[in-house]
Amino acid sequence: MPGPVSHTYEYPRPALTVDCVVFGLDDEDLKVLLIRRGVEPFAGRWALPGGFVRMEESLDDAARRELEEEAGIRPNHLEQLYTFGAPGRDPRGRVVTVAYFALVKLSDHVPHASTDAKEAAWFSVWDTPKLAFDHAEVLGTALQRLKGKVRYQPIGFELLPPKFTLTQLQRLYEVVLERELDKRNFRKKILAMDLLEELDEVEQDVSHRAARLYRFDHKKYKQLEKAGFNFEL
Amino acid sequence: MPGPVSHTYEYPRPALTVDCVVFGLDDEDLKVLLIRRGVEPFAGRWALPGGFVRMEESLDDAARRELEEEAGIRPNHLEQLYTFGAPGRDPRGRVVTVAYFALVKLSDHVPHASTDAKEAAWFSVWDTPKLAFDHAEVLGTALQRLKGKVRYQPIGFELLPPKFTLTQLQRLYEVVLERELDKRNFRKKILAMDLLEELDEVEQDVSHRAARLYRFDHKKYKQLEKAGFNFEL
Repeated sequence: MPGPVSHTYEYPRPALTVDCVVFGLDDEDLKVLLIRRGVEPFAGRWALPGGFVRMEESLDDAARRELEEEAGIRPNHLEQLYTFGAPGRDPRGRVVTVAYFALVKLSDHVPHASTDAKEAAWFSVWDTPKLAFDHAEVLGTALQRLKGKVRYQPIGFELLPPKFTLTQLQRLYEVVLERELDKRNFRKKILAMDLLEELDEVEQDVSHRAARLYRFDHKKYKQLEKAGFNFEL
Repeated sequence: MPGPVSHTYEYPRPALTVDCVVFGLDDEDLKVLLIRRGVEPFAGRWALPGGFVRMEESLDDAARRELEEEAGIRPNHLEQLYTFGAPGRDPRGRVVTVAYFALVKLSDHVPHASTDAKEAAWFSVWDTPKLAFDHAEVLGTALQRLKGKVRYQPIGFELLPPKFTLTQLQRLYEVVLERELDKRNFRKKILAMDLLEELDEVEQDVSHRAARLYRFDHKKYKQLEKAGFNFEL
């Protein structure tokens, strides 16, 4: 096997990584996907999934590859969050990381670890273990982005199952925004936007009275958005 | 003089740059600051000011340094925009750029070129020359961010002189959002937020009836923001 090839440049270059903040929602809480590092630095510490960008792949592709490799996850919603490049953020030397932000339906994603990740698991975003690198700051930035965005873009639906009750939807907003919402007001606002399709189905297997199920109408939203409509909750 | 030191790494690394979209506003139009490149690639072509990130400086510091060096500009409002890293975006090889977005009061900033920039000048954002690299895409992304942001954060004021008329303020929103706004509605909304301080002064040296001058109350906004208030226009 050939040894590592060396790469020489006239000026020093930082290393470039991607790191991904993957959010999921269960009945209780907003969750973030973490992996337990198997290698130094910070071996044994929990961290965001991520790794080095390859020379021939785009940044988005690097984020998708790392999520697949490290946790077997293929998110529907993935967007670039922010690039973190403070000179001292990685003990190996200058490493700049392009952070991504993903939303998944938790039920679809039982994470499994692979490659250099020892374990992968979901943690409550409000109660994570001590994270490696500056990943606590990255997570904080992602939470802020999510809080800001759910109000002006219908991305929250990416966290719900395809069919959901209005109670589940309200719970999502309450969990993300960290405050209780008035039920009557919330329903009035969301139904007034006319973006939910009321289904001829109710919840299954619940002990209380089964509630009506709804579906988000992506197609209609795209049309309204083109016409200048602003989602707002 | 010693020759260039070479830097060797086990894996190849992309080069890392910053590029800055600086917006200013005059009576007519929204302007963007461009520099004419003095060196290859794209020598002679207009481009966003920017350059390579140094190993010991943060990304924000690199952006501020390049703006100062290339155009003598020190913006009040500077924020990270997005990182562009498509493998083919630079003919020199893999170069990833962290783009920034800045707002300045145009009257304070007569740009002057220096270092490797031949010329620096303001152009209408709707009518720029053909830009180097993927800078047209970067500019487009910055415009989208500005359009989205002016509605939910009072950053537009960074483009105005400290004292302004309501007509100037409305004109700012019309230029950025690319649509006419109803004067009565606009004034009602902006005054209802109670963030403008009405001054005991009127415009000087105007041929029409001199209008009242206002100032944005940053301190009051910070207080309201802490209390959960959302700016919205």
